[in-house]
Amino acid sequence: MKDYSKLYEKQRDIIERKIAKVFEKLSPESLYEPTGYIANSGGKRLRSFLVQISAKAVGGKFSRVYNSAIAVELFHNFTLVHDDIMDNAEKRRGLPTLHVKYDLATAVLAGDGLIALAYRYLLKDCKAQHIDVVKDFTEAMIEVCEGQSLDKDLETAKKFTVDDYLEMIRKKTAALLQASCEIGAKLAGGTKKEINALSKYALNLGMAFQLQDDLLDLIGDEKKFGKKVGGDLLEGKKTYLFIRAYEKAKGKNKKALDKFIRNNGAKKDEIEFYRNIFENTGAISDARKLIEDYSNKAIIALKNFDEKQKEIFVWLVNKLIKRQY
Amino acid sequence: MKDYSKLYEKQRDIIERKIAKVFEKLSPESLYEPTGYIANSGGKRLRSFLVQISAKAVGGKFSRVYNSAIAVELFHNFTLVHDDIMDNAEKRRGLPTLHVKYDLATAVLAGDGLIALAYRYLLKDCKAQHIDVVKDFTEAMIEVCEGQSLDKDLETAKKFTVDDYLEMIRKKTAALLQASCEIGAKLAGGTKKEINALSKYALNLGMAFQLQDDLLDLIGDEKKFGKKVGGDLLEGKKTYLFIRAYEKAKGKNKKALDKFIRNNGAKKDEIEFYRNIFENTGAISDARKLIEDYSNKAIIALKNFDEKQKEIFVWLVNKLIKRQY
Repeated sequence: MKDYSKLYEKQRDIIERKIAKVFEKLSPESLYEPTGYIANSGGKRLRSFLVQISAKAVGGKFSRVYNSAIAVELFHNFTLVHDDIMDNAEKRRGLPTLHVKYDLATAVLAGDGLIALAYRYLLKDCKAQHIDVVKDFTEAMIEVCEGQSLDKDLETAKKFTVDDYLEMIRKKTAALLQASCEIGAKLAGGTKKEINALSKYALNLGMAFQLQDDLLDLIGDEKKFGKKVGGDLLEGKKTYLFIRAYEKAKGKNKKALDKFIRNNGAKKDEIEFYRNIFENTGAISDARKLIEDYSNKAIIALKNFDEKQKEIFVWLVNKLIKRQY
Repeated sequence: MKDYSKLYEKQRDIIERKIAKVFEKLSPESLYEPTGYIANSGGKRLRSFLVQISAKAVGGKFSRVYNSAIAVELFHNFTLVHDDIMDNAEKRRGLPTLHVKYDLATAVLAGDGLIALAYRYLLKDCKAQHIDVVKDFTEAMIEVCEGQSLDKDLETAKKFTVDDYLEMIRKKTAALLQASCEIGAKLAGGTKKEINALSKYALNLGMAFQLQDDLLDLIGDEKKFGKKVGGDLLEGKKTYLFIRAYEKAKGKNKKALDKFIRNNGAKKDEIEFYRNIFENTGAISDARKLIEDYSNKAIIALKNFDEKQKEIFVWLVNKLIKRQY
């Protein structure tokens, strides 16, 4: 299969430069310096790429959707800033989080400013017939807020199921990927069938991507992955792995998982211990199967696209979802 | 002049009931209970009323713009929630602020949810030809964020002018009133001339309203006004009164105002002292003149509307801007 890395990197660089320009001539500095700080701090630019390749898949050009590509990235960065406040996170992309570098008030307001700028850029790409695009974006924002609230609920929940977890990541992570594909395809004049197919692709990609994120947190290569291994356990997060293990565990293992709930997480020297429980209950292999399922569903969703158009989407699944772990 | 109080109260009650319904069937509760808490806690519903009377002034019906009337109120409540976080405020409309009643994370997310819901409701009233309405709403949101940032800047500023202050309140307060009138008039099919006139009305009303708020904080009737007299002084806010007095003060008075800056505010037993300085420097009478000017400009902006249509707007100025202080 063709390697689309060069194309991806080129488009990412274009979007990087365009995002840097967003903040150039705006004032007051007290608002736009912090918003620029987070928006220019890198990231995969996955969401903007989805907008772009979805536009292209239905016959449009990358350049038709530059502004909405910027919009979904600004939106994503808003979620990061406010989530970091809620999670008391200190680092993001190797840098101090916004509320640490500045202060709480600045971070709250910077997040708000990013939402407003996101709408401003989205609207630049919208003609009268595209009011539906603004609705998609808005409904995605509502789902992201709901997903974040469900995530907070899970932290303290005494009862929880795998379905609760999947619903949470669908809203918190997948909804914006879906909106990105829908927006790109709609702006470039895609048919309903094409738009739905791309939306389904993004939904399944998002699910696979988030589940993999959970898995890599536990068994990933620390250097390659860039996060501390076992961070979710230390923070007491009820990821898929935990919930699935909890469903299947009995006896000693169940008691250990109950202790995790009571203590709101694990200690550093318990990471290995919990990883073994996840392994022994089959939660890890179940996660691998689920990731594989979602990845396959993402590709199948595009079955009516011709092979040439489909290639880059398949490449992206393989790039994001590494199948060799 | 006809008394429009009954009409205003009737519409306010309708909007109250509609806002209560917004949250009825939504889940998760962890998101929508707190958003409902603030959105249903009362308030003047001035912004929704401006949407409605602007629609009517150009020949539309109140019912044409119910959703966008809800939208501007939800938006206003978002600003209150996030501003209260930034200001560390404990009470709002006589109730605990959202971050006090719940917690910081809930308040940050509730504000975000309110923005998203505001767009959802605005979009319900928008047909394809109304994409400009969404732009107006978005640009107002950007101005409100900028205004809030300018307000925070003023707190620590060593240099400041009356113009800085007026620019700040234009963005923080007047911009959303302007957008409310523009949105109502555009949705009801107003002409450009009508829309501009209503926008100008709202701009001037907003300026008068905010300046009066500053003045009432210092010399208002505590029972009638519902806030502690001198609260701005205690919080060290550089209102119009302070900045104007600082421009005009000399000698002893100037030194006292410098002390206010150094101490980031006044003590409770100094309120009378500072009020006297504002009186003696003429800052209070200048504020009165300015409020009168803006109020008159608001009414003059509507000179091309016929007297019957204009009446309710004049009534509203008189209701909000009490001329007898």
